[in-house]
Amino acid sequence: MKLPGQEESDVSSAYENVPTGELDSGPGSRPSPSGSSDTDSRELGVTKDPLLFIQLNELMGWPKALEWRETGRWVLFEEKLEVGAGRWSAPHVPTVALPSLQKLRSLLAEGLVLLDCPARSLLELVEQVTGVESLSPELREHLQSLLLQRPQHLIQGTDTRLCWGSAHPREASHDEEAPLKEQRQNPLRKKLPPGAEVGAVLAGELGFLAQPLGAFVRLRDPVVLGPLTEVSLPSRFFCLLLGPPTLGRSYREMGRAVAILLSDPQFQWSARRASSLHDLLAALDAFLEEVTVLPPGRWDPTARISPPKCLPSQHKRLPLQMQEAKSPSAWRRARFEHRRGHLPHEPSPELQRTGRKASWYPSDFLDALHPQCLSAVLYIYLATITNAITFGGLLGEATDGAQGVLESFLGTAVAGAAFCLMAGQPLTILSSTGPVLVFERLLFSFSRDYSLDYLPFRLWVGIWVATFCLVLVATEASVLVRYFTRFTEEGFCALISLIFIYDAVSKMLSLTYAYPIQRPGSPAYGCFCQYPDPGGNESQWTRTKPKDRDDILSMDLGLVNASLLPPPECARRGGHPRGPGCHTVPDIAFLSLLLFLTSFFFAVALKHVKTSRFFPSVVRKVLSDFSSVLAILLGCGLDAFLGLATPKLMVPKEFKPTLPGRGWLVSPFGANPWWLSVAAALPALLLSILIFMDQQITAVILNRAEYRLQKGAGFHLDLFCVAVLMLLTSALGLPWYVSATVISLAHMDSLRRESRACALGEPPSFLGIREQRLTGLMVFLLTGISVFLAPVLKFIPMPVLYGIFLYMGVAAISSIQFTKRVQLLLMPAKHQPDLLLLRHVPLSRVHLFTAIQLVCLGLLWIVKSTPAAIIFPIMLLGLVGVRKALEWVFSPQELLWLDELMPEKKSIPEKRLAPEYSFSASDSEDSDLMYQPKAPEINISVN
Amino acid sequence: MKLPGQEESDVSSAYENVPTGELDSGPGSRPSPSGSSDTDSRELGVTKDPLLFIQLNELMGWPKALEWRETGRWVLFEEKLEVGAGRWSAPHVPTVALPSLQKLRSLLAEGLVLLDCPARSLLELVEQVTGVESLSPELREHLQSLLLQRPQHLIQGTDTRLCWGSAHPREASHDEEAPLKEQRQNPLRKKLPPGAEVGAVLAGELGFLAQPLGAFVRLRDPVVLGPLTEVSLPSRFFCLLLGPPTLGRSYREMGRAVAILLSDPQFQWSARRASSLHDLLAALDAFLEEVTVLPPGRWDPTARISPPKCLPSQHKRLPLQMQEAKSPSAWRRARFEHRRGHLPHEPSPELQRTGRKASWYPSDFLDALHPQCLSAVLYIYLATITNAITFGGLLGEATDGAQGVLESFLGTAVAGAAFCLMAGQPLTILSSTGPVLVFERLLFSFSRDYSLDYLPFRLWVGIWVATFCLVLVATEASVLVRYFTRFTEEGFCALISLIFIYDAVSKMLSLTYAYPIQRPGSPAYGCFCQYPDPGGNESQWTRTKPKDRDDILSMDLGLVNASLLPPPECARRGGHPRGPGCHTVPDIAFLSLLLFLTSFFFAVALKHVKTSRFFPSVVRKVLSDFSSVLAILLGCGLDAFLGLATPKLMVPKEFKPTLPGRGWLVSPFGANPWWLSVAAALPALLLSILIFMDQQITAVILNRAEYRLQKGAGFHLDLFCVAVLMLLTSALGLPWYVSATVISLAHMDSLRRESRACALGEPPSFLGIREQRLTGLMVFLLTGISVFLAPVLKFIPMPVLYGIFLYMGVAAISSIQFTKRVQLLLMPAKHQPDLLLLRHVPLSRVHLFTAIQLVCLGLLWIVKSTPAAIIFPIMLLGLVGVRKALEWVFSPQELLWLDELMPEKKSIPEKRLAPEYSFSASDSEDSDLMYQPKAPEINISVN
Repeated sequence: MKLPGQEESDVSSAYENVPTGELDSGPGSRPSPSGSSDTDSRELGVTKDPLLFIQLNELMGWPKALEWRETGRWVLFEEKLEVGAGRWSAPHVPTVALPSLQKLRSLLAEGLVLLDCPARSLLELVEQVTGVESLSPELREHLQSLLLQRPQHLIQGTDTRLCWGSAHPREASHDEEAPLKEQRQNPLRKKLPPGAEVGAVLAGELGFLAQPLGAFVRLRDPVVLGPLTEVSLPSRFFCLLLGPPTLGRSYREMGRAVAILLSDPQFQWSARRASSLHDLLAALDAFLEEVTVLPPGRWDPTARISPPKCLPSQHKRLPLQMQEAKSPSAWRRARFEHRRGHLPHEPSPELQRTGRKASWYPSDFLDALHPQCLSAVLYIYLATITNAITFGGLLGEATDGAQGVLESFLGTAVAGAAFCLMAGQPLTILSSTGPVLVFERLLFSFSRDYSLDYLPFRLWVGIWVATFCLVLVATEASVLVRYFTRFTEEGFCALISLIFIYDAVSKMLSLTYAYPIQRPGSPAYGCFCQYPDPGGNESQWTRTKPKDRDDILSMDLGLVNASLLPPPECARRGGHPRGPGCHTVPDIAFLSLLLFLTSFFFAVALKHVKTSRFFPSVVRKVLSDFSSVLAILLGCGLDAFLGLATPKLMVPKEFKPTLPGRGWLVSPFGANPWWLSVAAALPALLLSILIFMDQQITAVILNRAEYRLQKGAGFHLDLFCVAVLMLLTSALGLPWYVSATVISLAHMDSLRRESRACALGEPPSFLGIREQRLTGLMVFLLTGISVFLAPVLKFIPMPVLYGIFLYMGVAAISSIQFTKRVQLLLMPAKHQPDLLLLRHVPLSRVHLFTAIQLVCLGLLWIVKSTPAAIIFPIMLLGLVGVRKALEWVFSPQELLWLDELMPEKKSIPEKRLAPEYSFSASDSEDSDLMYQPKAPEINISVN
Repeated sequence: MKLPGQEESDVSSAYENVPTGELDSGPGSRPSPSGSSDTDSRELGVTKDPLLFIQLNELMGWPKALEWRETGRWVLFEEKLEVGAGRWSAPHVPTVALPSLQKLRSLLAEGLVLLDCPARSLLELVEQVTGVESLSPELREHLQSLLLQRPQHLIQGTDTRLCWGSAHPREASHDEEAPLKEQRQNPLRKKLPPGAEVGAVLAGELGFLAQPLGAFVRLRDPVVLGPLTEVSLPSRFFCLLLGPPTLGRSYREMGRAVAILLSDPQFQWSARRASSLHDLLAALDAFLEEVTVLPPGRWDPTARISPPKCLPSQHKRLPLQMQEAKSPSAWRRARFEHRRGHLPHEPSPELQRTGRKASWYPSDFLDALHPQCLSAVLYIYLATITNAITFGGLLGEATDGAQGVLESFLGTAVAGAAFCLMAGQPLTILSSTGPVLVFERLLFSFSRDYSLDYLPFRLWVGIWVATFCLVLVATEASVLVRYFTRFTEEGFCALISLIFIYDAVSKMLSLTYAYPIQRPGSPAYGCFCQYPDPGGNESQWTRTKPKDRDDILSMDLGLVNASLLPPPECARRGGHPRGPGCHTVPDIAFLSLLLFLTSFFFAVALKHVKTSRFFPSVVRKVLSDFSSVLAILLGCGLDAFLGLATPKLMVPKEFKPTLPGRGWLVSPFGANPWWLSVAAALPALLLSILIFMDQQITAVILNRAEYRLQKGAGFHLDLFCVAVLMLLTSALGLPWYVSATVISLAHMDSLRRESRACALGEPPSFLGIREQRLTGLMVFLLTGISVFLAPVLKFIPMPVLYGIFLYMGVAAISSIQFTKRVQLLLMPAKHQPDLLLLRHVPLSRVHLFTAIQLVCLGLLWIVKSTPAAIIFPIMLLGLVGVRKALEWVFSPQELLWLDELMPEKKSIPEKRLAPEYSFSASDSEDSDLMYQPKAPEINISVN
């Protein structure tokens, strides 16, 4: 046997046929290609068959004007020619009637099968194929000229322009070897990877044939068969199915059947290696053994099935003896380990000090050279400064002005940029977070109640926290993250998202207090402008001469030393605005609400443009990638168009600490007694727990296996960085920073990479994240110089930013499985989606699990909002305990589906993949779904 | 052979198996049941087989604890038991692996087949089945006790509560005949029609069997097999498939295969009539001939396919000789005529004077007794009075107060109620329409320019129009509606919808002029209250004593005879509000916009609730049916909560003509010369064309075949009514009325009837419209008494009503095919939906047709907006001409898909169905889709 085409191709992996088994494919026993779209195949060092493009040329027009026309083509899926409409159908799952396959089998069994045919051109091939004894010489010549006739192809450009190839259908081509213009210009050519081969199927009814003529040819060396095929690629297979006219279009259907067979990875693998007709028929029979049958009474055969989101795994099609050798779970584990390339008891690489990060460092900057990164920088920059302003304002309130917006800006810029340069996972965005802010507020109340000097006290807390964190780093305590299961992550992520949503809405509503709505009869009515020297005594009423003023209206009204000028104008002219209406600005509250809603809904709608049917994919991608930026711009435009005095983004103008009279460095003791520096260890312990949980849960979420990060995580290194920055910010009196879940997820989502090869029905697949340091660095550099960007930034209305905040919160919370399960609570059982989870866990148990999570979330929220908030970090730790206690309530089987197996049994990276690769004993038929490469769901996307 | 169960059942038709052919089903030749869900079958007088409920009991727990458990059930689709989750899966299209069918075939061929078995109980049946020679007596006894064991059923209530039936699985049941409690309480029982039968399939692996045991039993008389089945219905089929353990779950799969076979209408028909094993195997082979095959490499066999929107037609499964007897088109025509029950050259019943309407009259009131009608009345009432107010206001502007809102209310109530009582199509809602309003405005300008007395002149125009219309009625000119093809309808409908949308938006924007937004620095600032005797001379400044007033603030400010009280308060105290700010009410513009958007989006969202997954179907239906009313209530609530002085619905308070000094009756001549009564015939001719087009196009749209109206149309009668009402309204000086497309469609949509039997995967099917006179009558009675409802109606803000208007316009325009084709212009070819249209017409031709429609629509809009608007009726007629001219541009084939064949060749009701029933020569494989009962798309629903 021969093994052609061993070259490596570097296009989308879904095109590949990857045989993993050995090459002895004896007839009857099914050989063992995995055939799945497996990116790991190259690592395993196996050879690949080239991609096969199959086209069906149908003989039309019998008996009057015979011509060949391409009416179908296959790569992964089938595209049919819509003859009437003159267009290619959308790619769909090929279906065929069973009798066509059976008729094909008998035609092949009786017909001509040439394996490793040495023909070097179409002419030679046609001579070989028509060299059967049953044909008279006259008939043979007639047939040969027919087969050499140039077929018609419908070339469909990406721009939907169509042209019918082959203007001279009657002319036999003599210069077969030179590709035709239409072939060269075919855009399909570019989509096929180098080394691709063609399978040409010719089928039709021919009245002068007395009996059917079937031929299946495998060419020894693939040859470009002149104008026969749509693309000028070498052909490997050639199949001819002609016969006398019959009822229906049976030859066309047989042609489709052979094309569908050849497009099946398993059959194709066998056909490339078959050494006899027997092998070929055995492969066909093996195919028939595995087909799925749709009953005629319930399925319309002309209905087209859209390509599935992911192709079926081919693992079940391995030979039985190999599947039986190991128990299913053992086999899966082996397969999994093979993928990861390490043994299960080896410590997981994420938690080892490997020095690997250094090797990625140059690429961390080069990988950022993509327009998408620009959008990411803009989006995250705006989110970051909004966050800095919001938390700065809150911090100012919480600490009575000991810290403020300037500290927030400076701290964000310094800490963020330093983290992006040093950290193990530079996709993380540092920020003030809700839990830490709550803690800081409590600390300030405490020090005020006991008349302590706040900043020095805070410095000592920071020193202790940094110390504790460094101890945690030194003892490699980050391995404890293995106890943070999906349950813990979801509880934390939901809490943070809810804080985002709550903050956005409450800040928006606070604007309606700042700019009250004027109801009819409300006392806040009227304002006029009073000029100097009032008093009411008559001598002064005329002092201001009407002729000195251009406020004609006021004079008409008989006002002498007063006018109805608007307050700013009044002040400019030396008057005093007087009256309760002077301080109310009308229309602002509702306009703010409109801007808030507009920016929120626009961001959501633009994000969804990616999956809409409208516009070319480039436009959709741009609109979707820049959705937040566009929503902000739209809000600013709307606001500028109306020109009302909505509250705008305020950037500090002077560079000095907010607290008057302090330098940048905090003195270590101030007015505090010395022992306070020791006592600070107690609150520091609580804060350390909080920082550790906040930092590491976010890190676990960001490093999920489904994001396919290539450069690995850095749990220890990141915690080390946070500890060092803690020390720095405490000494400078800046806010404290940890990884921010929501913004970091938004950052990653804006850096998604997707495959482009989706022209022939293959859905775009998620390739990974642009892992680099540059976007984060740029974001924080911009944050730093934002202090000087006030003239530009002052045009951004705050309600627009609140709308984007709301969007981020909603996007984050709607991405977690917990939200999907909460939605299940509201759905009648029969309308629930067909989740794998629901196939395996009783609904009542699912609801119980969800209810427990809801209760935990409610408790966390209550604790966060009450004076007991100081024990909040312990409550977070409690989540881990609750999860552990759940093992008494739920069976391991149920927890496997609802959460994950507890991680004692597994190393971390394996744990993250567990739900897809685990074994469910009860229902083996579903196991296939578990094997599928999970469509990567990134957590920020709003679905 | 026997034909059991000939009784008629009155449940949803989709359950029925309707054999239309003869009963001789010789082996090999496929018998001819149509098997489709055909409501017409009863009319054709054919017998039906009862519905078959099939259940699969699987033997679980070998070898330890054997028990039967129901793991699958079938009616139309398959429901699987999710063993782990303990729930039934959603119904899905059944699929099976081909080898299972083949193994089943060989097992049946070797096994026991008892046709017309006389067994009368489960015991007798079990004895018969186990009476094969190959079993030893001991084995037989063992097997019998096993088969008599009570199986476990999962009973799933509609309220998602689950219970496992059969608490005593080990106990052999002795009182087999009495249905168990769980069987009686099974909610599934209620969903199955009376006379339904059961097919019980028992399958599993049994270690003590040496060889497979297969039995297929058809009972002569269906018998309740005790606790064997989930529902206590008589069983007709019994199938046993047991054997020694093998690899995989082959017996279970064979059991599924036999269940899928029995659920196939064609196989079931044959199995009921088979007289030998040979017949049965022939039916199985015939089934295999028609199955669709999905290739294993591209389709995951565990994926579940949702039930299709409509079941495949079974017409192709007729015996070939019958299909070949006629040409396909002739055959289809014959089939179509058979359905309609009349010959094609018979005049269509809609256009004959039949007197049929009278016979429906009582039911026209009784059919209205349904809660849905209440919602319809509320919805349409609100739409009607909004319309009356809007058009009344516009009419007042257009006629300089010769007519006004009161005339609009009165005329709407009188004309509408009279029409609903008399008309042939009482679902129609009469209203002022845009085109007629445009004409009236032109007529008024003309009479003003030539100093004519308007109302008498208008009376004569009305008299002439009524005369012309009566002539049209007498000459039965309504048959001309056959020239109104989809092209004309869509042009007209799109125009009317656009007028709705334009009016809603422009009325909304006009509010921002009425209530301007106060920008910073705008002069409209400040307002104060001046007390009597102003003048500015010093003596008067002190006349108003500060102590007489409680306006402390003004005194503080040093104002003596002026205060800052709000204008209403000021007026109450005898002062005059002065200043530019007194007339501006802040916040109203933005609040109005918010209310407008809120009511629009809420109406859209609530309408969509029907297809959401959330909430039980009853809740969803109520929310969806009352969507507009709820949106209005929400808007009112929001407005009342904020308490601002938004513009509210104004209902006239006094009952007298708007024009001062005229009585209700218009004098025939007034100040006009006598010859004007003759000259009025000229404008009357134009108006007659307009009225005829407006009235009849709406009538054609409302009487579309897809709405399945049972009581027929009344083109002549309706035009007669319109003519008589024209006379009446002209004489009283009220506005003119014709059928209003948008509101009438909304009326019909709010009266949709849908089938309820959708529990087992059958989509709810559209049954028709509640055709009655009561809702319309109620609407207009309410409109009449609305003049006295001012205290209630005055709380409805106008922006909310504009929002509902926008919703109605958007809903109407988004329902026509034209809109879908406009959307295609923006879609890249590869993302376009798989419309049948696009399979048969080249995209460029589709775009050309759409572009021509767009140009026509643009011209109509321009003409409507310019002074040339008087020729607007002729332009509308021109649409018919353009459509005729299109026959030179497009082939009949293309027009068939894009529009319809020109109606010369067809009678009207046939024409309306043409696209589904026409023959496309190019691609016979699609013909199946054309036959499907089109999912009824009612035109108003927003998709």
